[in-house]
Parts: sequence; C-alpha cells; structure tokens
Amino acid sequence: MAMAQFGATPNGGVCRLALSDADKAARDQFVRWCEAAGCAITIDQMGNIFARRAGKRVDSPPVMACSHLDSVPTGGKFDGTLGVLAALEVVETLNDSQVATDAPIVIASWTNEEGVRFAPAMIASGVFAGIFDLEFALGRVDKDGRNIRQELQRIGYAGTAECQRWPLGAVFELHIEQGPVLEAAGKQVGIVTGVPAIRWMRLVLEGQEAHAGSTPMHLRRDPVRAAVAILQNAYDYIKRFLPDARFTVGNLLAEPGVVNTIPGKLAITLDVRHPSDKVVTEIEQWWHRVARDNGAILEKLWVSPSVQFSPEGITAVEKAANVVGASAMHLGSGAGHDAVHLTRVAPTGMIFIPCKGGLSHNEAESITPQDAATGANVLLHAILQVAQLV
Amino acid sequence: MAMAQFGATPNGGVCRLALSDADKAARDQFVRWCEAAGCAITIDQMGNIFARRAGKRVDSPPVMACSHLDSVPTGGKFDGTLGVLAALEVVETLNDSQVATDAPIVIASWTNEEGVRFAPAMIASGVFAGIFDLEFALGRVDKDGRNIRQELQRIGYAGTAECQRWPLGAVFELHIEQGPVLEAAGKQVGIVTGVPAIRWMRLVLEGQEAHAGSTPMHLRRDPVRAAVAILQNAYDYIKRFLPDARFTVGNLLAEPGVVNTIPGKLAITLDVRHPSDKVVTEIEQWWHRVARDNGAILEKLWVSPSVQFSPEGITAVEKAANVVGASAMHLGSGAGHDAVHLTRVAPTGMIFIPCKGGLSHNEAESITPQDAATGANVLLHAILQVAQLV
Repeated sequence: MAMAQFGATPNGGVCRLALSDADKAARDQFVRWCEAAGCAITIDQMGNIFARRAGKRVDSPPVMACSHLDSVPTGGKFDGTLGVLAALEVVETLNDSQVATDAPIVIASWTNEEGVRFAPAMIASGVFAGIFDLEFALGRVDKDGRNIRQELQRIGYAGTAECQRWPLGAVFELHIEQGPVLEAAGKQVGIVTGVPAIRWMRLVLEGQEAHAGSTPMHLRRDPVRAAVAILQNAYDYIKRFLPDARFTVGNLLAEPGVVNTIPGKLAITLDVRHPSDKVVTEIEQWWHRVARDNGAILEKLWVSPSVQFSPEGITAVEKAANVVGASAMHLGSGAGHDAVHLTRVAPTGMIFIPCKGGLSHNEAESITPQDAATGANVLLHAILQVAQLV
Repeated sequence: MAMAQFGATPNGGVCRLALSDADKAARDQFVRWCEAAGCAITIDQMGNIFARRAGKRVDSPPVMACSHLDSVPTGGKFDGTLGVLAALEVVETLNDSQVATDAPIVIASWTNEEGVRFAPAMIASGVFAGIFDLEFALGRVDKDGRNIRQELQRIGYAGTAECQRWPLGAVFELHIEQGPVLEAAGKQVGIVTGVPAIRWMRLVLEGQEAHAGSTPMHLRRDPVRAAVAILQNAYDYIKRFLPDARFTVGNLLAEPGVVNTIPGKLAITLDVRHPSDKVVTEIEQWWHRVARDNGAILEKLWVSPSVQFSPEGITAVEKAANVVGASAMHLGSGAGHDAVHLTRVAPTGMIFIPCKGGLSHNEAESITPQDAATGANVLLHAILQVAQLV
C-alpha cells in the first residue's frame, strides 16, 4: 500500500509509467528499503536495480527473485510490485531470523516491463538475457519523442554496471495470475509451466459494397454474414484443443462501416494460443484453409514460440508449495513476463497467486493479504531450495 | 454524356455536390436546353427548377416528371440525371411530333436530393410537399459552415417563387434501380410499388474485458462470441420474411478493439427493411427479445414508415410499359427518392431501369442506351396516360 502511493490514481489504481517521476519515486523508496535491509545496490545501463544480500560462499552464483515496478496507465497495485516487494520480504525475513544462505540472493527490479511507454515490453530483462541490443534498447522512443537513455539520465537511474547476463543459480518470479483460473479452481498458488505459443493473424474478407435497401439477401456478397458462419465454425473447431487452447477475436473492422451499407470489406483479428507449437501451427493451417475456401486473405501478424520453464525451476516451486502447505496447481501463463527472458540465463520458475475476478491491467486489480503471504512464503522456500541454508 | 462533364471525375464518375459550382454549371445547361425546347422556367425559394410545357386546357393541373441533378462525391453519371434528362427528352419528342397535351407538363429538378452536402436528403422536394419548413431548410449548413440560403444566392438560384405544393395531375420519376434485381431478373423496367419500412437499431453487448492469453475459454464473457451466435440466428430468422425482407449489419465496434484483449463491449448496427410496417415491427420485437435474453441493450436509431405509391401512379406506369412493350416487374425501392415526398401531393409513380451490377453511388455506375431509351419511352407514355393527347 505504501508503494501504491507512487502514481496513485483517484480510482484506487496506479499510473506508474516506466521512467516517469512516479517510477523514480517508487525506485527511490525501493532502494531505501533494500539498503535498510542491508542489501548492496547496483544499477545497470538499462536502469535495472539489483539489491544483493550476501551469501556465505563466494563461488556460489546468486539466486534471483525478480519482477517490475512500472505499470500500465490505468494499472493496479500488484502487477509486478507484488514480486519485487515479496522478494524484499524474503530478505527481511531471513534477516529477522538471522538465517544465512550459501548463495547470495539478488532482488531484481526490471525497467519497462509493461512496454506501454517504450515498446517492446520486457525490454530491459531482454537486454540482460542477450535478446535485445543495448543501443537499440536505449534508443527506444516514447510518443513524446523522449528515449530511454534520456529518461534514465533525467531520473538518475542511468547506471554504470554493464547490462548483460551474469551467472545465476536460479531465477524466481512471483506474480499475480492476471487471469481467473486459480480463483475458479480454488487454489492458492499456481506453478507456472511456461508461456504458450502465440499466433496473431488478420482475416480479410472481401464483399460487394452495396445498398442495404436495394440489394436482396440472395444477391449479396456480405462479408459480415460470411464471418459469422466462419467464426461459428472456429469456436466449434477450437473445442478439440481445450482446455489449453485460447481463441480470441479482439477487433472487427467493417468498411465503410455505416448502418445502411453492406460492407465491401471486413477485417477480423485472430489471437490463437496453445502450449504446443505444433497445435498452434495446426490451427493456423486450419485458418489458411478457411481463408482459401472463402476467397479471403489471411495475414500473419506475429509468431511467438512457446516457452517452457525448466524442470529445476518448476520442481523448486513445487517443493516450496509443498513445504508451505499451499494448495497448488500447474498452469500456463497467458501473458509474457521478465522470467520468460530469464529462462535463457538460468533455471527459472514462476509462482502465481490469484487476483480477484482475474482482473489485471485494471485499477480494480485486487488480491488478499493471505494469498500475498502464501505467495511470498512459496517464493522464500523456492529460493532456499537453491540458495541452501548454512 | 454532355451533362456528365459538369463535375466529371478522373475515374469516369461525377462529383456534383448540391449548390457547388459544378451544380450551377449543370443547372445553367439544363435551363438552356429547356428554354430551347420552348419551356417556361420558374425557380423557387429552394432553388428547385421547374420547366413548363404548356397544355391546351388552362384548368388542367400539370403532370410532373422529376428527379435531381446533384450527386454524391464519387457518384455516377445517371443517378438523378437520367430522370431529369429523360423528362426533357419527353418534351422534345412531343415537340418534334407536334403533339399537344391537355395538361401542361412540368419538368422538376429538385435541389439537394442526395443530402450529402446538406442534411437531410430530399430536403427541397420535402419543403415543396410540406414536410419541412422553408426556414429550417434554407438554414441547413454544410461542413464548412455555409448554408443553403447563402449558396443559392451565390450560384444565382435563389428563386422568388414560393416553395410550396400546387395542384398536380400526377408525378412520375424515372430513376436507375441502384440495386441488382432487374438485371438478375432480366427485366427492362421496374414498376416501383413503394419504399419499405425501415428500422435502424444498435445492439450493444457487454462482456468482461480480459486478457486473451490468461483467460480460459470457459471463463470468458466474450461479446464477439455472443454476437456470432445471435447473428447466426438472425440470418436464419430473417429467412421467414424473404424475399422482401432486408437485414444488414453495416458496422461492428469492439472496445478496446485490440488483438490480444477479449472486448469488454461490442456494438453492432442493424438495418431492417420490409414493405410491411407490421413485419418490421415484428422483427424489431424479435430483436428486443434477443437483447433481453442476452443482457444486451437495443437502441432504436431511426424509424421510417413504409410508403406505397398510389394505384393510379402504378397503373399508369404498368399501362405505359405495356404500350411500349417493355418487359417489366413490380419491385420496391430500397433507397429514398424525391417521388416519395410527392406521394403527399399527387398520384405518383416511379420507373426503374437496370444499372450494371446494381452499382450506384459509385463512379462505375453504368446503364445501356437501350435501357435508357426504354425507360424514357415508359415515362412518355405514363405522362400521356394522365396529360391526355389532344
């Protein structure tokens, strides 16, 4: 709640765009809390903040617990922030209990996870993992023409540490689910298995633009009517890939789009997801056949392969949930997270807790203190699986 | 083709917005041709042009043949113009044959039929028929802030004759069909029976805005999926009112309308038409039930009752088609026409001829010289049914 004051909105949410004044204030508060907990702070060239609690063994690679402090314009209090502050809570708990670990523990708060102000999302963890070039990332520009380099300097977070991967024993990220699965299943904790394969496509149906009054039904080439039949089939077709498949029509654009004209054209967006790349490719091929059979054009907008979290990461979270006695289930993550990039660097695990109604990227985003505590406990014990008690 | 030079577009169409310079040039040419044909010209307060060929009997109300010379921005050569010039052709033919009629014949070219520059459409025939107030009409403003009064004065067509109904024996309008029915039926002439009842509605479906990745199919409230099921039923339902019913979804607006978000809201426009007001009301009630059953909102945007042309008007056109030996069929008009307003003044009949592919309000609008001649001959003989040969 203290962190939620930075960028607080009248409706109880948070507007804390990356590298804004609100983000700077949140970062400053986070750094003060970490220093009070005895951590050593490092800022890298992308403004990523690393807070390190020393371990007993110098040769042991650190265990990282990470997430982000930036938000979307009408975001909630918990998206990202939960994971960063739970990691701090883990460190404070170890301090309070006077527990030492073999491996150091590093809390990471990544810059610009949301990608709303500067595209793409997860850019700074991406530079760290070697996916994006540093110069490319620093040059990314917001809608007012200011780039990440300038804004890092402006808020005092243009660090000198090189932004590149270093050895890590494991990476864990606690995050709200941002979906309704845990709540519906009555589970306290989600053990995230990975991120599904994603295809974004656009189906463009051509019709014959004509007058709604003077054109009888049997003489029309109406792309809306064609789309209705196609989508009815598509919603049926996707059933064979349930429960894991997702199929979403997010937008429909009719041209000219006026009440008394049969559209000459209709473009609909298709978002298809499934944990298996093979299944998503099969679904995409179905859409190619549908397009061909209907004389339509299918444009491929985006292809994102599936990501699997490593067995070590998943097992550590499973064991931790068991130790804590939390009811848990495996599930995929619908959204992207910094942890996805970190799979390229070290064994990685993710922990979800429920959010009310599955709502996220929404000022009404809400979690219970009990679920937050359970999630933080699972994070603690997952870290201890790897960092080893002394 | 000579008239089509005024406002000619590079793609072979016409841009002759009401009271534009191109409209003035077309009006001037029309007036010159009418005067050359011996007609007396009257301009009224709405800029309507009346060209009168005298009759033998002073007490006989004139027979009117009318249409319009203005066009939509990317219009064709024949919409409106055909009816005005065919009426002139009728007068010239009577002159050439030295035929006198009992009743005078008046050619009327109505101002601003299209309603594109100044809303509403058919405003000047509406003032004539007593539907719109003169001051309301003269004050209508285009998007640049210029009103009809100013523009009539600018182009020299602010006439002094009162714009109000006077006794007419009958009114006829020849027009292109603007739909594909005659072409599909292989008929030369359409005997227009009336204009159907129209309802414009908007169905607003509320959903739960949610992430396309993290929300399983069975936990969604997706307004697009709901709309697909509703529209599938609607297209089936409308079948019981064929062949006369028309049902068109011209626009679909999803919010927020992005590829990876299940829309929180979907609004779709509904255009329903049928010659029977009772049937359209029944269809509207079906939609109210659908809205209620789906927790949706149904907004009524526009109600237009059906208009029937009078038996005298229809019979005169039927007889004329028979005299000419033209293949003919009865049909409704999907679009509005000045003749619809004139039904309040006198017995009115309309004659359609085919246009290629049913295309209109389109630069590719096209008719054959044969069909134009047949239509003009039917117009001639319809006029003679009422005006009486001497």
